Amino acid sequence: MMIIMKPNATPEQIEHVIQHIKEAGLNVHLSQGVEATVIGAVGEAHSIPTERFEGLDGVEVVKRITQPFKLASRQFHPENSIFPLDGFQIGANEIVLIAGPCSVESRSQILETAQAVREAGANALRGGVFKPRTSPYSFQGLGEEGLEYLAEAREETGMPIVVEIMSQTQLDLMLKYVDVFQVGARNMQNFNLLRALGETRKSVLLKRGLSATIEELLMSAEYILAGGNKQVILCERGIRTFETATRNTTDINAIPVLKNLTHLPVILDPSHATGHADYVTAVARAAIAAGADGLIVEVHHDPAHAVSDGKQSLRPEKFADMVKQVRAIAEAMGRSIAPIKKPVAVGW
Amino acid sequence: MMIIMKPNATPEQIEHVIQHIKEAGLNVHLSQGVEATVIGAVGEAHSIPTERFEGLDGVEVVKRITQPFKLASRQFHPENSIFPLDGFQIGANEIVLIAGPCSVESRSQILETAQAVREAGANALRGGVFKPRTSPYSFQGLGEEGLEYLAEAREETGMPIVVEIMSQTQLDLMLKYVDVFQVGARNMQNFNLLRALGETRKSVLLKRGLSATIEELLMSAEYILAGGNKQVILCERGIRTFETATRNTTDINAIPVLKNLTHLPVILDPSHATGHADYVTAVARAAIAAGADGLIVEVHHDPAHAVSDGKQSLRPEKFADMVKQVRAIAEAMGRSIAPIKKPVAVGW
Amino acid sequence: MMIIMKPNATPEQIEHVIQHIKEAGLNVHLSQGVEATVIGAVGEAHSIPTERFEGLDGVEVVKRITQPFKLASRQFHPENSIFPLDGFQIGANEIVLIAGPCSVESRSQILETAQAVREAGANALRGGVFKPRTSPYSFQGLGEEGLEYLAEAREETGMPIVVEIMSQTQLDLMLKYVDVFQVGARNMQNFNLLRALGETRKSVLLKRGLSATIEELLMSAEYILAGGNKQVILCERGIRTFETATRNTTDINAIPVLKNLTHLPVILDPSHATGHADYVTAVARAAIAAGADGLIVEVHHDPAHAVSDGKQSLRPEKFADMVKQVRAIAEAMGRSIAPIKKPVAVGW
Amino acid sequence: MMIIMKPNATPEQIEHVIQHIKEAGLNVHLSQGVEATVIGAVGEAHSIPTERFEGLDGVEVVKRITQPFKLASRQFHPENSIFPLDGFQIGANEIVLIAGPCSVESRSQILETAQAVREAGANALRGGVFKPRTSPYSFQGLGEEGLEYLAEAREETGMPIVVEIMSQTQLDLMLKYVDVFQVGARNMQNFNLLRALGETRKSVLLKRGLSATIEELLMSAEYILAGGNKQVILCERGIRTFETATRNTTDINAIPVLKNLTHLPVILDPSHATGHADYVTAVARAAIAAGADGLIVEVHHDPAHAVSDGKQSLRPEKFADMVKQVRAIAEAMGRSIAPIKKPVAVGW
Repeated sequence: MMIIMKPNATPEQIEHVIQHIKEAGLNVHLSQGVEATVIGAVGEAHSIPTERFEGLDGVEVVKRITQPFKLASRQFHPENSIFPLDGFQIGANEIVLIAGPCSVESRSQILETAQAVREAGANALRGGVFKPRTSPYSFQGLGEEGLEYLAEAREETGMPIVVEIMSQTQLDLMLKYVDVFQVGARNMQNFNLLRALGETRKSVLLKRGLSATIEELLMSAEYILAGGNKQVILCERGIRTFETATRNTTDINAIPVLKNLTHLPVILDPSHATGHADYVTAVARAAIAAGADGLIVEVHHDPAHAVSDGKQSLRPEKFADMVKQVRAIAEAMGRSIAPIKKPVAVGW
Repeated sequence: MMIIMKPNATPEQIEHVIQHIKEAGLNVHLSQGVEATVIGAVGEAHSIPTERFEGLDGVEVVKRITQPFKLASRQFHPENSIFPLDGFQIGANEIVLIAGPCSVESRSQILETAQAVREAGANALRGGVFKPRTSPYSFQGLGEEGLEYLAEAREETGMPIVVEIMSQTQLDLMLKYVDVFQVGARNMQNFNLLRALGETRKSVLLKRGLSATIEELLMSAEYILAGGNKQVILCERGIRTFETATRNTTDINAIPVLKNLTHLPVILDPSHATGHADYVTAVARAAIAAGADGLIVEVHHDPAHAVSDGKQSLRPEKFADMVKQVRAIAEAMGRSIAPIKKPVAVGW
Repeated sequence: MMIIMKPNATPEQIEHVIQHIKEAGLNVHLSQGVEATVIGAVGEAHSIPTERFEGLDGVEVVKRITQPFKLASRQFHPENSIFPLDGFQIGANEIVLIAGPCSVESRSQILETAQAVREAGANALRGGVFKPRTSPYSFQGLGEEGLEYLAEAREETGMPIVVEIMSQTQLDLMLKYVDVFQVGARNMQNFNLLRALGETRKSVLLKRGLSATIEELLMSAEYILAGGNKQVILCERGIRTFETATRNTTDINAIPVLKNLTHLPVILDPSHATGHADYVTAVARAAIAAGADGLIVEVHHDPAHAVSDGKQSLRPEKFADMVKQVRAIAEAMGRSIAPIKKPVAVGW
Repeated sequence: MMIIMKPNATPEQIEHVIQHIKEAGLNVHLSQGVEATVIGAVGEAHSIPTERFEGLDGVEVVKRITQPFKLASRQFHPENSIFPLDGFQIGANEIVLIAGPCSVESRSQILETAQAVREAGANALRGGVFKPRTSPYSFQGLGEEGLEYLAEAREETGMPIVVEIMSQTQLDLMLKYVDVFQVGARNMQNFNLLRALGETRKSVLLKRGLSATIEELLMSAEYILAGGNKQVILCERGIRTFETATRNTTDINAIPVLKNLTHLPVILDPSHATGHADYVTAVARAAIAAGADGLIVEVHHDPAHAVSDGKQSLRPEKFADMVKQVRAIAEAMGRSIAPIKKPVAVGW
């Protein structure tokens, strides 16, 4: 960490900063310049917040040299993290497609949708059973009943299931059912939840918060990794800006920036990132062209009757068309869509 | 709710929307215009999300007439909500000052700060014992030990204590100690936590999320109110924008907008809203001039050694000066600072 | 335009709004609902700002049915606008690549770069001679001298030249040299300049402002179109958000949204949209995958010595690599890169 | 300027940076740290953009020590800039109130409004005659006719007039009429216009752009100051954020931040900053409490018939009430409202 002092910092202020660096367990490297004094704080600095020095008298600015995240950083882990899901790998050359409805609404809805997205080329099934709704009066999800339907869909289609967790109190129940825990944008900095997930050994799909920086997303991943769980998938899902033509603004820059900073797999959610079914396919193509490792897409067999997110959900046939277009882009990138696992049971 | 159809909407699409309105338990009021058809959906519409209709074919836009929040709305509760804290009232003509350190760091620190802010004019004591830190490697709070120190500070000074809760798993422990639960910006949409707090009968200080709209803040308040807990205090603490000269951007507009929309008390946190001790006093004055019912301010007896938020913490003497300036503004507004409760025990 | 009245609007307020609609030359279509009265204002409403009615007593909200832009709208012009530049077309199936330095710095620099980008596959040459610099102390451009070098580069390479105009006082001079006028982000709402360009019959490349909505971009295009100049190219170049990892945030959603709303060609500037040479290629690929009709890219033969934007400029060989990758994406989209015009003179 | 090299920067890269610093006319101060090398670039660095070094290989980050603005900086001009307007001073202890309609619409409208705001306590009259309208189809202002009416209003009331200039082509005409040139938010980085105004010796009221940082506002002021015109008034008028409850978000932090960074007078425009007449007074009070030197407020004698900005315009009687409330806050701050000049001619 480099602490740049103000041009008129006094020797006492400099001494005070040096004292603080030592108290923090770091070594000091002093450099008296013509315009300003720069004090290096050397050692295990990634665990020390810059604010520890920013408030000291005479300090102009504090600049990290090493990144504040360590386990998530490509600096210490240059090759991509690849980890297996049921039947395919994520983070490797193959692109992963996760699809399904926003909410599990009924047994028939999720079974029907699961078959449809599987046939269209999806590798994994998404579906919410605990729903973070802005209004307390909105549908809040089917809970365990929904998990049972999802488990049945997995058995029928062979696809692993991705389900959002909202609270560590749901962990024990969900552990019995889900393959991948999804952490939603509104919980990206629910640190208690992240810590609890770090104790599990199941994959976690971590969505970027509506106004979270890329660095903050990586710090939240670090919470999970620090618990020993290495299977974190990062997900760009649009950020909140002044533009109202779309629900969110897809930060497509985040894809190459994240691929540069971290070894973790990075996917994109074009459904939330746009909020309109009409724009999902174009942004899905863009994500793959930008280097994403996968997509998570909302698909509903009857969007007009979806209890949530109908406006941004694709009909299965439109999803199938999206897969075709995404496949063409993947091939232009020298990649492919992960193959569909052979069906397990098609008695439905 | 008014559903405005596209100019070229077909009769089938209109019929389809009408069907959906009826399925939602609402009544239909159809109005065929020259340019567009408008369909009113009349009834208990506040519990129905607009997205339920936005995705339907032929729909141009859906516009609420009634607000999506009801218990929080001034429409149904025109007079201010006033509720007592230990020794004073919030939401009334008197202005409430909550002050204290970001984190409880030690027994002596919190006792010393409590006495100092009390003497300077504070009405309540803040102090964090569970800390939402961006980095898993940062200090995470003293936990129950911190609660015990806070309880001791309350006993000595007579001030009620305001403490942040991060997870419903902390609820039982904290219920034994705290007077006001604080919900931090990162948890404003932790709906499980809000619901759990709605079940208690303790005051909740709800901070606006970094990128939450004013309407979303009120919807989160609605979660608590819907559980039967009427004691919700709203807190503007700065939003995230492109400006980097300050830690956040104080949305001062939010004060009169909230006072217009809701009967709940509204306070401001100038420490987080600016991020710099140098700007806290000016923004504290502005908040009161804009109509806020109180302030929550970070004060530390030795900011240079604070384990968190030192940069934005006032020294007690600077806080005392802030109180003087705020008092002058309050008087110009025809208000006053809530009186300091008589000391309980000054044996320290 | 639909004017939705507040639930408690009085008959006098409704009558007042009706009067206003008539004064604006529009016809009235009244619809008395159960919850609210809706008043349609029918006629040439696109020329009337909604604010004309928003401030009236009793008005809840004013909603346009017809778009406020007309000449730019796909509603009235369903097929793509295609117009010829020197040797190729823009807006058609072929993708256009505009490349060159941020600033023209010297004769040799621009001639050398022009040859290099042309060989790499560029169709047009960009280069600034009047530079909008944040600081009055920064290099402000070579002025007419720069235009002469650009003209020489055009003669040598056969590529049309794209040059930024900052003020209508530069128009007469520039008309003698440039093929395409570029309007920079900071001048997107310099309405006097837009109007002046509307009087010309040269193509205009209109960049989106840093915080301009998509609708505002189209309204600015409307200023040029209203003058009779039909040759407007829209350019997404990143918007300003809270994210600081990149210079701007590429709003990739804007590509499909614009292609849906307007018939005008849409291109993307990955250099400004990211601010880092390392991320330009990934975002260039994403733009084409999202449906953009072209790219404008900063290329410098020696970025380390560029007087401006060196950090985001590609070296010619890196640009050539970008073209290869973009070509693969274009082909996956069923499109191609516009062919390079045969050289005119290679005596240099 | 401090250039911090990446931890793994090579000696060649360091040498290359040193070479660049020397080419820029600066002196080098090298400091080889344990973690990183820091190179100081010492001298007239404020005129050199940081990007000149940011793109060089091996550079981690470039940090200015001296501010990029110089004439605007309080560092070199510690006492407040105070300059006289017709009959009162701006930047001194007295608070200045500028009021009037968005647009001059007719002779009677501006004369009537001028008298009304003067009686209510205004010190100067605003009114637009060239209007920057988003739509080419909206009213664009009365032009010179409007200037004549304004001149007549000045003669009658004795108030100086503040008028927006949109282009340097309007300068000669306007010089004959106006006392203060207003530069609107959309033109804050119209550098040609700023430069032209720097050549005049009339006061310039410079509004912050919708997405301009505080530093960029000061750099734009620097353009005017660099031309020798010392009379620049800075104006916060709300920035663009995700919040849609108000037209813009008032950045109240900007008031103390600007007062800290610069010696120039700082005022606030609560009309544009909120967009709603109902919120103007609260934000006007907040501005003065935060330390602003004045206000510019939209007042219309009949907002329902205003051709622009009716929604945010105060009726004269509401403005008079606002003045009363602002006066109380000013007095609490130890300041006063600048006195109204004795009437010159009241024959109207």
